[in-house]
Amino acid sequence: MTDLLGDLTRTHHCCQLRDTDIDKEVVLMGWVQHRRDHGGVIFIDLRDKEGITQIVFNPEHSKTVHEKAQEIRNEYVLGVKGKVIARPGDMLNPNMKTGAVEVMIDELYIFSKAKTPAFQIEDRVETSEVLRLQYRYLDLRRPQLKNNILARHKATMAIRNYLNNKGFVDIETPFLTKSTPEGARDYLVPSRVNQGEFYALPQSPQLFKQLLMISGFDKYYQIVKCFRDEDLRADRQPEFTQIDMELSFVDEQQIMDVAEGMIVAVFKKVLNIDLVTPFPRITYDEAMSRFGLDRPDLRFGLELCEVSDIVKDAGFKVFANVVKNGGLVKAVNAKGCATFTRKQIDELTDFTAVYKAKGLAWIKIKEDSWQSPIAKFFTDEEKEALRKRLDLEPGDIVFFVADQPKITNEALGQLRNELARRLELISEDTYKFTWVTRFPLLDYDETENRYQALHHPFTAPLEEDIKKLDSDPLSIKSRAYDLVLNGIEIGGGSIRIHDTELQAKVLNCLGIDETEANEKFGFLLKALSSGAPPHGGIAFGLDRLMMLLCREDSIRNVIAFPKTQKATCLLTDAPSKASTAQLRELAIKVTKIDE
Amino acid sequence: MTDLLGDLTRTHHCCQLRDTDIDKEVVLMGWVQHRRDHGGVIFIDLRDKEGITQIVFNPEHSKTVHEKAQEIRNEYVLGVKGKVIARPGDMLNPNMKTGAVEVMIDELYIFSKAKTPAFQIEDRVETSEVLRLQYRYLDLRRPQLKNNILARHKATMAIRNYLNNKGFVDIETPFLTKSTPEGARDYLVPSRVNQGEFYALPQSPQLFKQLLMISGFDKYYQIVKCFRDEDLRADRQPEFTQIDMELSFVDEQQIMDVAEGMIVAVFKKVLNIDLVTPFPRITYDEAMSRFGLDRPDLRFGLELCEVSDIVKDAGFKVFANVVKNGGLVKAVNAKGCATFTRKQIDELTDFTAVYKAKGLAWIKIKEDSWQSPIAKFFTDEEKEALRKRLDLEPGDIVFFVADQPKITNEALGQLRNELARRLELISEDTYKFTWVTRFPLLDYDETENRYQALHHPFTAPLEEDIKKLDSDPLSIKSRAYDLVLNGIEIGGGSIRIHDTELQAKVLNCLGIDETEANEKFGFLLKALSSGAPPHGGIAFGLDRLMMLLCREDSIRNVIAFPKTQKATCLLTDAPSKASTAQLRELAIKVTKIDE
Repeated sequence: MTDLLGDLTRTHHCCQLRDTDIDKEVVLMGWVQHRRDHGGVIFIDLRDKEGITQIVFNPEHSKTVHEKAQEIRNEYVLGVKGKVIARPGDMLNPNMKTGAVEVMIDELYIFSKAKTPAFQIEDRVETSEVLRLQYRYLDLRRPQLKNNILARHKATMAIRNYLNNKGFVDIETPFLTKSTPEGARDYLVPSRVNQGEFYALPQSPQLFKQLLMISGFDKYYQIVKCFRDEDLRADRQPEFTQIDMELSFVDEQQIMDVAEGMIVAVFKKVLNIDLVTPFPRITYDEAMSRFGLDRPDLRFGLELCEVSDIVKDAGFKVFANVVKNGGLVKAVNAKGCATFTRKQIDELTDFTAVYKAKGLAWIKIKEDSWQSPIAKFFTDEEKEALRKRLDLEPGDIVFFVADQPKITNEALGQLRNELARRLELISEDTYKFTWVTRFPLLDYDETENRYQALHHPFTAPLEEDIKKLDSDPLSIKSRAYDLVLNGIEIGGGSIRIHDTELQAKVLNCLGIDETEANEKFGFLLKALSSGAPPHGGIAFGLDRLMMLLCREDSIRNVIAFPKTQKATCLLTDAPSKASTAQLRELAIKVTKIDE
Repeated sequence: MTDLLGDLTRTHHCCQLRDTDIDKEVVLMGWVQHRRDHGGVIFIDLRDKEGITQIVFNPEHSKTVHEKAQEIRNEYVLGVKGKVIARPGDMLNPNMKTGAVEVMIDELYIFSKAKTPAFQIEDRVETSEVLRLQYRYLDLRRPQLKNNILARHKATMAIRNYLNNKGFVDIETPFLTKSTPEGARDYLVPSRVNQGEFYALPQSPQLFKQLLMISGFDKYYQIVKCFRDEDLRADRQPEFTQIDMELSFVDEQQIMDVAEGMIVAVFKKVLNIDLVTPFPRITYDEAMSRFGLDRPDLRFGLELCEVSDIVKDAGFKVFANVVKNGGLVKAVNAKGCATFTRKQIDELTDFTAVYKAKGLAWIKIKEDSWQSPIAKFFTDEEKEALRKRLDLEPGDIVFFVADQPKITNEALGQLRNELARRLELISEDTYKFTWVTRFPLLDYDETENRYQALHHPFTAPLEEDIKKLDSDPLSIKSRAYDLVLNGIEIGGGSIRIHDTELQAKVLNCLGIDETEANEKFGFLLKALSSGAPPHGGIAFGLDRLMMLLCREDSIRNVIAFPKTQKATCLLTDAPSKASTAQLRELAIKVTKIDE
């Protein structure tokens, strides 16, 4: 077969040669990382996926090859044949795996030339993210990004092996599917064959995996793209990858066991870390009480403490009134931080204001007095009670937020995280997991004036709470659970409703009447009435998990071809205009006025 | 944790119990396959994913449990606890793995009731495909479909393990991407953030996998959904799954080797068949000459034979004129089939007419004469030449098609397959692979009056043919290859162009000028000029491969949730209308007039 490579077969990767290979004839292929001319000799660092080897073009060894090598520039792609030789003693590089040897080249093929790259292919090079995304193929040559992508492969392979061994079946669910009301906005796909109608890209395979349980597949998993047309944040992408699973005839315990085992396998494979299981678990109520957030970061203390009962009659009317109106007064004691300056305190006040706290009260505990704008409002008894409850000691500073429960918890919970960052309480290589369980089934949407599902409408309520569906829906706890790592939710799931009547009742409670229910997911209700096993599952965000494993700040750094926060691809320039002919076939028209 | 299953943990699947388990206390969970009442005792076949076990409710053993069991109907979901006992001698069922035992039930949980299913959960039950698709979750309970889905999981796991061991990296490519001209029609996704613009769902990750090679990933694979908005045939779906791979620094040989190894691994894992490699390979020209099709079925002979040279001056003007006008006269000898009736021959004539053949000439070879409407037109010399060339013996019937080369080959190639079916020459459990290589690079689109790429515009021409790009493009062979199994193409790929200039030249030959090229895939051209390794790859259609492995006629039977030929999902009723609010946000309007 005709072929440029016909005569040349790669014998080694660029990470492999050692002094034990000296005198071997080898063929290497790769990119020019760096070229140096020294005393008429050309030295090139040749790079491939695995590493770097120094190759040498010496005119005394081969004049023709050396001449040809003159034209080589950075990022050229070469194939070379030569003999492994020892480096001279003063050229040994102990920082390089292949630093004991070099290859004296006899044959050179320049497979491809390269223009000067838009930025240097090195981790330490600083360049704008815009440029990096435009030239993503160059950026992916940098070791950091390359290693993230390789780690992602390792992780998914570890997940697949683990789940396969546990009897899970990988089953593909459809991408062109039906718009379902799962909270976020759907991406729509106009149908040509059925003009005027639209598919929706899945936000998750939720309903299909439940159908698979009803079919009897027992244990399902899939590593699958999902889509949400939401405004994007640093850790959101319009398309994201979910590790999705569902099991029949199980309860929460069995699902958590299998999920923990999977996480253990991933950490072992990617980081060679042995995690200890079972992971701790706390209820949603406890998480809110102690940490103010449903995704507590357990790498440090600084727990929140409610003091509503102590301050409910205090002379400080702000606190007293909040308690009177059903609010919460909570505090966090930053031990030993009484040295915070006014400026620091102002910054923290601004910080909590982002979370809608109307103010941040504080008290510095001195040896013999409390220094604070509000200290004077408390009686000695109240002070003593606060001292005991909050373990106040000289040198501490304690912060208070008083507001409606949601705001108090969110603001003080975020303040707790911010304090930990500022006080450097977080050790970077610690991985603290916790399960959060028993979430509320519903919350109340003030703008739409109706209940909505906190997880999704298919989540089972706690057995003993079902009776409260009519009387007190907001007090119902669900059988949902999240897995939280270092304060970030990496997965969540629930035991599902497997009873048609209960499902109809919950939908009804969400303001979805029978007609709407049948239209939107009549097929699920029908399926539930065809013999549904008790079942439940969980889904993990692979992008976020990889971000944490790779210690990156953005999920864009663990995705080969990510989109910007404006949902565009700077590399391919997607999205882009469609042709009139395309739109005509789809029977749609763009209604945008401009251009 | 509150839980229905709290007291009950499954100890066995319904395929596991044997006489060695007698006296054990077990917990089983599953669906009621069948219920029989016999002498006041209730016998139930309990089914789960793995198999069936007979469970027994005997009033003499437990009156309460027996009473509760009265209400059990087919497809109810049960959890049961009981003791394994031996079946009475006359009840032994050697056809069932668990046929030596039954379980006497002490505890019964009815997890879920079931309405009478729309059809029986048995393979032998005949029902319309429409009903089966509407109740897909019931259909997936049938052993045949269930086993197909399980085989698919086994196959993909075998593929992943094989490729992982070979150093391939699984890398996800985007789904919301840019419309690219790869032949078929794109599915479009309107963008909300960038109103008036559209993403396209990928027809294949072709350009991204080439970019990954340019990034240096060396070996990429992905099992990935792709999308084509084409009118559907029996073996086409709007979304389909591709086993996609790409390698750097390789030639055709290395790609074929790795692909063969993968296919071997799949056949071993799924069917426990040891395939022999290397698979035979023939060039496109040879395939067309001998079999008339570029996807030859090698399970039988019946090869085509060109006779243009023999009949070019024949008295039979139809043949002579075809040859004069650059056409082809080819024949196939159906050995021993001179017994074909007039009706059978008429059917075959109609069959070839579908492939645009204007007629089907035939000659029956008798002991002492040729019986045929056209025999009289041949001289003795011509007859003798035909006899020799076609190995004509008494008892044979030979069919001729004379037409333009495309039609002659297609019609006679299809006739060859049809004859094999009618003559039952095909043994069902034979798997005959062949590589077809050296496809033409281009063909000529008569309607659009321009050349088009036979494979895709990134396929490399044979090195020695590049010089013909200007002078004789249609004679250029490409470095493309298909893998054909039993007459069906299951995979195809090529060595790609890795040189910017050659790529621009080929695009130009396809009538894509520089402006258009830059707009449509400027990013690829730019990437090629940043240092591109020689690379190539292949993609397999997983659905089609599984169809062949599972001996199904339709890919719908190897897909969990397939669509109809009208691209609808009968289960979820997708596609469906979008709300006005959704369309307003996307700035699009449906232009369809009716309803």
